[in-house]
Amino acid sequence: MAAWPMPETQAVSDITHFLGGPAGRWRVMHARAVIEAGLPLVDRLDVTPAAGPFAPAGWALRGFVSNQRYTTRTEDDALKARQAGLGRAEATCAALIPIRKSDAWWQLAQDERRAIFEERSHHGAIGLDYLPGIARRLFHGRDIGEPFDFLTWFEFAPDQAAAFDALLHRLRATEEWSFVERETELRLERDPG
Amino acid sequence: MAAWPMPETQAVSDITHFLGGPAGRWRVMHARAVIEAGLPLVDRLDVTPAAGPFAPAGWALRGFVSNQRYTTRTEDDALKARQAGLGRAEATCAALIPIRKSDAWWQLAQDERRAIFEERSHHGAIGLDYLPGIARRLFHGRDIGEPFDFLTWFEFAPDQAAAFDALLHRLRATEEWSFVERETELRLERDPG
Repeated sequence: MAAWPMPETQAVSDITHFLGGPAGRWRVMHARAVIEAGLPLVDRLDVTPAAGPFAPAGWALRGFVSNQRYTTRTEDDALKARQAGLGRAEATCAALIPIRKSDAWWQLAQDERRAIFEERSHHGAIGLDYLPGIARRLFHGRDIGEPFDFLTWFEFAPDQAAAFDALLHRLRATEEWSFVERETELRLERDPG
Repeated sequence: MAAWPMPETQAVSDITHFLGGPAGRWRVMHARAVIEAGLPLVDRLDVTPAAGPFAPAGWALRGFVSNQRYTTRTEDDALKARQAGLGRAEATCAALIPIRKSDAWWQLAQDERRAIFEERSHHGAIGLDYLPGIARRLFHGRDIGEPFDFLTWFEFAPDQAAAFDALLHRLRATEEWSFVERETELRLERDPG
C-alpha cells in the first residue's frame, strides 16, 4: 500500500491564490466596492496556484475550481462549443469579481437555486452571449472559510471592454443578484504577450 | 475598513479532520476495502475541526460540510422533519465511509448527476427510510485535493446495526454506485455517555 501523507505535509492543493500587493503580473486599473465594503487598494495582482513569496502590504483571496453546479447537459454543450480558454495573447484585460451571497440563498434547496439562477435570471444564457470574446473561470471560496463565496475571473481583449460592462450590467439586474450581499470589482491590465 | 488577514495567518477553516492512529475517541472495530485499496489499519479514530496534536503512525482524511447539491425543497423538508443530530448519547456506533467517484461521474452535467442520484438510484429516499435511527453527515474532499471525494459519517445506537447494513447494501446496488471507483468502510464504537 502506498505511503499515506501525514497532516504536517498535507498542503491544501487545488486552491488558487489571488494576491493583491505591490507586485504581480496584473496592474490594477480600477477597484470598486459594488455592494458593501471593498478591498484595500493595491497596485498589482498575481494569480498563483500557491501562496508563494508574498509582500507584506496586501491581501490574499483563495478559491478552487469545482464541477458545474447548475448547468444541464444541453447548456454545457453550448458553452463548450463557444468558450475560449484563459491566457490568450490578445486578452490583456482582466477582471476579478469577488461576491458573497446571503444566508437566504444558501438555505434554498438545489431546485430553488437552479430556478433563480437560470430559469428566472438566465445567468448561463447571458454569459453565452459574450463568448468567445470574454473568457471566464469560476473559483469557489465559501467551503474553505473565505470572505467571498465566489471569485469570478474574466479575460478579454481591450476591444471587448464595452461588452464586458454590458455583461455585468445585465447580471446585476437579475433576481439572482438580489441575493448578493457583498461584491467588489477589480479591473486589470497586463503588458501584451 | 477592517484589517485584511495575511496569507501566513489564514488557516483553511471549516475543514473537519478524521485522524486515524493509536489514539482517539472512536475504537476501530472493523475496516474493510470495499472497492480498490483500503486505508492503513489503525486502532482509533478522532474527528476534530483542526489537525491538532497527531501521532506519527496514522493518517488524516479531510472534508468540509457544504450546501446540498441535489436535494429539492420537498426532499429537504422531508429530511429535516425526520433527521437526528450527531452526538446522541445512545449513538455509540459509528461508521466512516470514504468514497471516490470516477471522472465519468464528474464529467456529467448537473441534470445528469441528479437523474442518476435520485430519480434512478433513490439515494435520498433510501437514506430517509433509516431516519431518525441512523444520523448522517456528508463531508466533501474532492475540491481540496483529497484522495476521497466524499467522507460520509454515520452515528447510530447498537440496535440499528442491522438496519445500517441494509442501508449500505441498498446503496451499493444502485446505478449511482457504478461510478464509485474507490470505497472503504470503517466501523467504530465508543464508550457510552
